[in-house]
Amino acid sequence: MTSTPTPAPPAPFTADDYRARMARAAAAAADAGLAGVLVAPGPDLVHLTGYRPAATERLTVLVLSADREPVLVVPTLEAPDAAASTGAPALTLRDWTDGKDPYAAVAPLLEARGRFAVSDNTWAVHLLGLQRELPSASYVPLTEALPMLRAVKDARELARLEAAGAAADRAYAEIVTARFAGRRETDVAADLAALLREFGHSQVDFTVVGSGPNGANPHHEAGERVITEGDMVVLDFGGLKDGYGSDTTRTVHVGEPGPAEQHIHDVVREAQRAGIEAVRPGAACQDVDRAAREIIDQAGYGDLFIHRTGHGIGVTTHEPPYMIEGEEQPLVPGMCFSVEPGIYLPGRFGVRIEDIVTVTGDGVRRFNTTPREMAIVE
Amino acid sequence: MTSTPTPAPPAPFTADDYRARMARAAAAAADAGLAGVLVAPGPDLVHLTGYRPAATERLTVLVLSADREPVLVVPTLEAPDAAASTGAPALTLRDWTDGKDPYAAVAPLLEARGRFAVSDNTWAVHLLGLQRELPSASYVPLTEALPMLRAVKDARELARLEAAGAAADRAYAEIVTARFAGRRETDVAADLAALLREFGHSQVDFTVVGSGPNGANPHHEAGERVITEGDMVVLDFGGLKDGYGSDTTRTVHVGEPGPAEQHIHDVVREAQRAGIEAVRPGAACQDVDRAAREIIDQAGYGDLFIHRTGHGIGVTTHEPPYMIEGEEQPLVPGMCFSVEPGIYLPGRFGVRIEDIVTVTGDGVRRFNTTPREMAIVE
Repeated sequence: MTSTPTPAPPAPFTADDYRARMARAAAAAADAGLAGVLVAPGPDLVHLTGYRPAATERLTVLVLSADREPVLVVPTLEAPDAAASTGAPALTLRDWTDGKDPYAAVAPLLEARGRFAVSDNTWAVHLLGLQRELPSASYVPLTEALPMLRAVKDARELARLEAAGAAADRAYAEIVTARFAGRRETDVAADLAALLREFGHSQVDFTVVGSGPNGANPHHEAGERVITEGDMVVLDFGGLKDGYGSDTTRTVHVGEPGPAEQHIHDVVREAQRAGIEAVRPGAACQDVDRAAREIIDQAGYGDLFIHRTGHGIGVTTHEPPYMIEGEEQPLVPGMCFSVEPGIYLPGRFGVRIEDIVTVTGDGVRRFNTTPREMAIVE
Repeated sequence: MTSTPTPAPPAPFTADDYRARMARAAAAAADAGLAGVLVAPGPDLVHLTGYRPAATERLTVLVLSADREPVLVVPTLEAPDAAASTGAPALTLRDWTDGKDPYAAVAPLLEARGRFAVSDNTWAVHLLGLQRELPSASYVPLTEALPMLRAVKDARELARLEAAGAAADRAYAEIVTARFAGRRETDVAADLAALLREFGHSQVDFTVVGSGPNGANPHHEAGERVITEGDMVVLDFGGLKDGYGSDTTRTVHVGEPGPAEQHIHDVVREAQRAGIEAVRPGAACQDVDRAAREIIDQAGYGDLFIHRTGHGIGVTTHEPPYMIEGEEQPLVPGMCFSVEPGIYLPGRFGVRIEDIVTVTGDGVRRFNTTPREMAIVE
């Protein structure tokens, strides 16, 4: 596998791409009755401008509204970096200097009684600063107000997500040929991270290796436990390739599995199949969760499936929309998300199977083509 | 230098340490007329509980108030990790499951009309969720309401910060013996990162190498520029050792400096000396900024000193208090912060000198003992 050439990277996004994204966001905000959108450092800012500053106590905020050009307010000492970002030609930069009140600098850009969407991860200190400066304005989380803003991917984004999924598949195809028994979880995790990088990931976000009882904790990462013959091992790995995410889970077995382990794996595999089969335009996010959960409930393990069925993916590896009970958001072509049911038997083992899929015009397409059968490793 | 043995790591903090910190925070909140403190994932949560989850769209919040035991509300699937944290025996864990409303789970713990301090980096989506659930409660940023909560370090924290500073000094003593001319900034940055790790840092937060004109951008990190004879080079590096931060800046010259470069360096060095000399109990934070800035103003470079003079340091490498005009917070023994004036000549070079200091009973103590003269490198 390693001799297969890695495809050339895609053409980078341009200032015009970011201009179009910002215009679309401003128009969507106006359609939703909002006075504008306030975007702090994080994935929304990356998506809209290509600018990737760290979130800090110093206010950085992009102000979008339908009736004026985009303005990015930044600390003076970060202004050179902001000016060098790809999206900078598509916006006006305003800087504020240490010692001045940054909220007073933003206020003239905002409608005093307006309703604004703020990016979910905006720091509270900044939201409270704006609330104090403009007490008659109101605020709503961006993903609640405009859930479609990043959720529906365009063709160039879909191509990047597909390439990231293919790279993760290649990493998986290699890792199952590696030795598991006698090595620590962290050793296998390091192999997985190296493989993701080898196949083009610039950033590895997680390499979960949950062996035996550790697999029963869905948030276990990788520890010092030595993997042994007879272990179930949950492998959940992903990161960013060309700016877009991968996220894959497979559960493998060291040596031949017993009937109980095979049964649990079969149930999860069937649940994952049912979840993916429920994906089609117009279905609700919660329908995907319900379809997967029903299989696990019927098999008698409902109490052991302790998380939602999926999450969106894009410029981050975890983002809206969420495939979860209560989420009535309809699926729209271009949405991309994980389908990842699991069963966790405390003290024994866990099984989870996860693929990234996208909603198409008439159904669903997978970005992972890795087999879902339980692989036997050594 | 590398043969000097690295000191043994300090004894880890215990559940009792975290219990005492949480009790102190709850008491301080009551003294300040607050109904409690709400702490999201981040440095405040690390300081109060030792628990280090990632901040996500799933609500994790520590609720502290004077009239009840601490409660940590966590997503069910993160509950095992939370229960395994050092501070867990000192608090009650409550979990909420995907699909339930986490804000409704927190509300019964809060006084409906209370005023709460919220950690500065709490995500807006969570603050808005609480504001919606408890519309009569009010919120204030934690560092504004209780600026002393993490700012004043105890003896064990001071020992860790001093050790981190000493490790950074060792890294600097080595790097000035390295070759600069003909190598890229990123090469020197990689050396610096390796040295910080060699001398005990578990995490490297930044290794700025700003050569020639890149040094004139105080937020430049390290790039592909090849360093050449005659360059000024700003080196700003730090990270965490045993959970506490280092942050040091020195500006070195490749070969003999000219008179203009020596003059700028002399002014910055004098400004840094004046800033440190202004540190004593009862002085205001802004007095440190003013003392350093006055020297640079008088030398005629006031417009080129475009950032505050310093920031606190502790479980993070950047935190309150800030040494900045308008910050009237009096200095208190045990506070630890940077003093780091700079002059930035656009297109030419920059000079910054930074040390970490702590306020003592009658003045100031440095955690960096590295010489502040301009080092000549090859």
